[in-house]
Amino acid sequence: MAQPTAKCEDCGAFIKRFILCPPSPALPPSPPLPLHGLTFAVKDIFDIEGHVTGFGNPDWARTHVPATSTAPTVLALLEAGATCVGKTIMDEMAYSINGENKHYGTPINVCAPDRVPGGSSSGSAVAVAAGLVDFSLGTDTGGSVRVPASYCGIFGFRPSHAVVSTSKVIPMAQSFDTVGWFARDPMIISKVGHVLLPLPGETNVELTHFIIAKDCFKYLGSLGEQISHIVAKSVEVSFGSHLITNKNLGNYIYEKVSLPREFLSNASGSQASTIPALGAVSFAMRLLQRFEFMINHGKWLESVKPSIGPGISERIMEALASTDDNVDSCMKLKSELKDALTSLLGEYGVLAIPTVPGTPPKLNQDSTTLEDFRAKAFSLLAVAGLSGFCQISVPLGLHNGLPVSVSLIARHGADYFLLNLVQAFYQTLKEQAAVVWESGL
Amino acid sequence: MAQPTAKCEDCGAFIKRFILCPPSPALPPSPPLPLHGLTFAVKDIFDIEGHVTGFGNPDWARTHVPATSTAPTVLALLEAGATCVGKTIMDEMAYSINGENKHYGTPINVCAPDRVPGGSSSGSAVAVAAGLVDFSLGTDTGGSVRVPASYCGIFGFRPSHAVVSTSKVIPMAQSFDTVGWFARDPMIISKVGHVLLPLPGETNVELTHFIIAKDCFKYLGSLGEQISHIVAKSVEVSFGSHLITNKNLGNYIYEKVSLPREFLSNASGSQASTIPALGAVSFAMRLLQRFEFMINHGKWLESVKPSIGPGISERIMEALASTDDNVDSCMKLKSELKDALTSLLGEYGVLAIPTVPGTPPKLNQDSTTLEDFRAKAFSLLAVAGLSGFCQISVPLGLHNGLPVSVSLIARHGADYFLLNLVQAFYQTLKEQAAVVWESGL
Repeated sequence: MAQPTAKCEDCGAFIKRFILCPPSPALPPSPPLPLHGLTFAVKDIFDIEGHVTGFGNPDWARTHVPATSTAPTVLALLEAGATCVGKTIMDEMAYSINGENKHYGTPINVCAPDRVPGGSSSGSAVAVAAGLVDFSLGTDTGGSVRVPASYCGIFGFRPSHAVVSTSKVIPMAQSFDTVGWFARDPMIISKVGHVLLPLPGETNVELTHFIIAKDCFKYLGSLGEQISHIVAKSVEVSFGSHLITNKNLGNYIYEKVSLPREFLSNASGSQASTIPALGAVSFAMRLLQRFEFMINHGKWLESVKPSIGPGISERIMEALASTDDNVDSCMKLKSELKDALTSLLGEYGVLAIPTVPGTPPKLNQDSTTLEDFRAKAFSLLAVAGLSGFCQISVPLGLHNGLPVSVSLIARHGADYFLLNLVQAFYQTLKEQAAVVWESGL
Repeated sequence: MAQPTAKCEDCGAFIKRFILCPPSPALPPSPPLPLHGLTFAVKDIFDIEGHVTGFGNPDWARTHVPATSTAPTVLALLEAGATCVGKTIMDEMAYSINGENKHYGTPINVCAPDRVPGGSSSGSAVAVAAGLVDFSLGTDTGGSVRVPASYCGIFGFRPSHAVVSTSKVIPMAQSFDTVGWFARDPMIISKVGHVLLPLPGETNVELTHFIIAKDCFKYLGSLGEQISHIVAKSVEVSFGSHLITNKNLGNYIYEKVSLPREFLSNASGSQASTIPALGAVSFAMRLLQRFEFMINHGKWLESVKPSIGPGISERIMEALASTDDNVDSCMKLKSELKDALTSLLGEYGVLAIPTVPGTPPKLNQDSTTLEDFRAKAFSLLAVAGLSGFCQISVPLGLHNGLPVSVSLIARHGADYFLLNLVQAFYQTLKEQAAVVWESGL
């Protein structure tokens, strides 16, 4: 192969003809590793080579062989310098937001030991809340990161759908499945994002507007008013009050999205107390979720007939009976909701809603008592769930001894923006929350 | 905050209630860094904090201030342990595939010193070909990584469009701009991919079918026949001959995509020798590229009136005169082409075409002589360019003293699959090529 012959007039080297001479920048590698020294735990739905992935159920573990490779998300965290301390308990087949597991025990909500920890990523949330690890991986299909984060008083991030790899993670319902993560510190939530998210497409962007979904906060009564006040005040201090709008999210969705009449009327049945448009959105999400779950796991369920705990077994029976009757209209609604929310938020707007409709429910409640709470919860969780937008549940400290949170939602793909935003104003949020909780405003 | 109280029956620790006991896997971090010990160079279109990004033209450099931050792609490579040795010469405003720069000199094609190195990522390709660095970053809008890789006898990868961050990279035409990279070794091409691409969505996938675009290889006459033979033989040895189909790509596109008559008739003018459907596809790509380039840089060009070398200045004048007249029909064609090629390749099919229609042109050729070659080249380059599919140019060694390559194309998003595939059968390709070149088959 011929060698280059031209010499650089400045430095005398032949390099001139293909690499610029100094002052062309030369940059050394930039250690240390981004997650150096941090520990994490992994929900038992991720494959780790040589170990059976348990999926929260002993019959599942018994009938499956050890994984032959490790999920790329776990590998990426190890390559970034973090240490995995183990796998965590989860709700059976990821089909609950409560966190109670009759086989392996219910992880203790260290913030509120008489309350459920939330699920299905229950153990991952508790491991972080109890300080056993710096961060943890969960999955969020219908709320399984956001809910336990809220109940356990920590940060929980659900990225935009299909942005973080779900390879070697047992599917629940692919139209909604995401890999999410928990931490006590917004800096660590961001650092993990830096490792798991694609490289940022844009940087240094500024908040354009901030919408408070005032109808959604009404689910929480006076607590909702307090949380909206904390959020509005914090945005005002950090970014200016001119960016804030209050909006009825339900009305907006009702106007912009064609909601099938039967979805709305269903919402007036078991979901009588929900905001009608959100009830319909949540109904569509649950229909699709059931159908996809059935396609994924119906055959195994029917052949193995596993032992499944109360609550979950009823929902799984419903899923097994589901058909593709409404799949098309659900998909249409999904696409229209994404368009409507994209118009609402633009590139760099943010929507604030409650993560859940109140403080964590008590342990061992019968499902009838929980029905109204669950219906409202899913009507909130389906906003990002069905649109595929990213959402972070931000802890606001303890109120009357129970953890309280707020959720921020940004458009699909604005994951870095949302994580940076939370870092920028979390300190203010925390201070404003402390003022309100102490003064009882 | 309450502490957990339950103890594990097996290990006596309180951990049981939220983290599974052993044999729950604990995994240490996995050093060393993936690019530890490797060096790289960066095309002078990427921002590096504190340095002016030169864009291949002294007037651009003179009228722009130093970058205030570094491109996320460059940062990611540094964080992965690689050392940046400097920035490389490029064609002015990235508006050429030749690699000749009248201001800074033309990087010497070390494989063929009397031939052009190819552009616009000329210096990045030569830095790798000359062994000065292990890999380098370029950008590829219309062919600016694939072409110099082919001319310099190295690997050049153009990822799926919008999959690798183009943040802090000067835009050429956003509908096509990609960040690509060069290496001499397929393992290093993959390693860089592992750092720059999003985490893999799927792994361990197998080739389903392999299509050889026989009409495209006809551009190269008997050399094209030899290359198709090498490729077919290598696929046969590595994956089995039942996977191989020969196909006229032009006919397929003509049948599946609605090509506006004026695009086809243009192709019968200056592009008389191209396959008509590919000529039309390439015409659409150039129209859109010109329009987007004008939107990006028209104002600067008109106010600064920079000194621009021959060939490039004519193309820039054309771009400045462009309008949005055909933008909608180009976008429609773009979307139809993507759909048609997605049907053709499915999830894990591969298409083989020539990267360029022949061996590298001689230095300092007048543009009239190059016209036919350029028209054919763009008709090949536009296949992945307009569809957004990923493409890798694979070197096949020297034939009559000049570098020869073949390109493999996979669907949008199948970047890991394509990189793994090349690793799996490059050795065979190289061996088959050596047999053919030596025997003169």
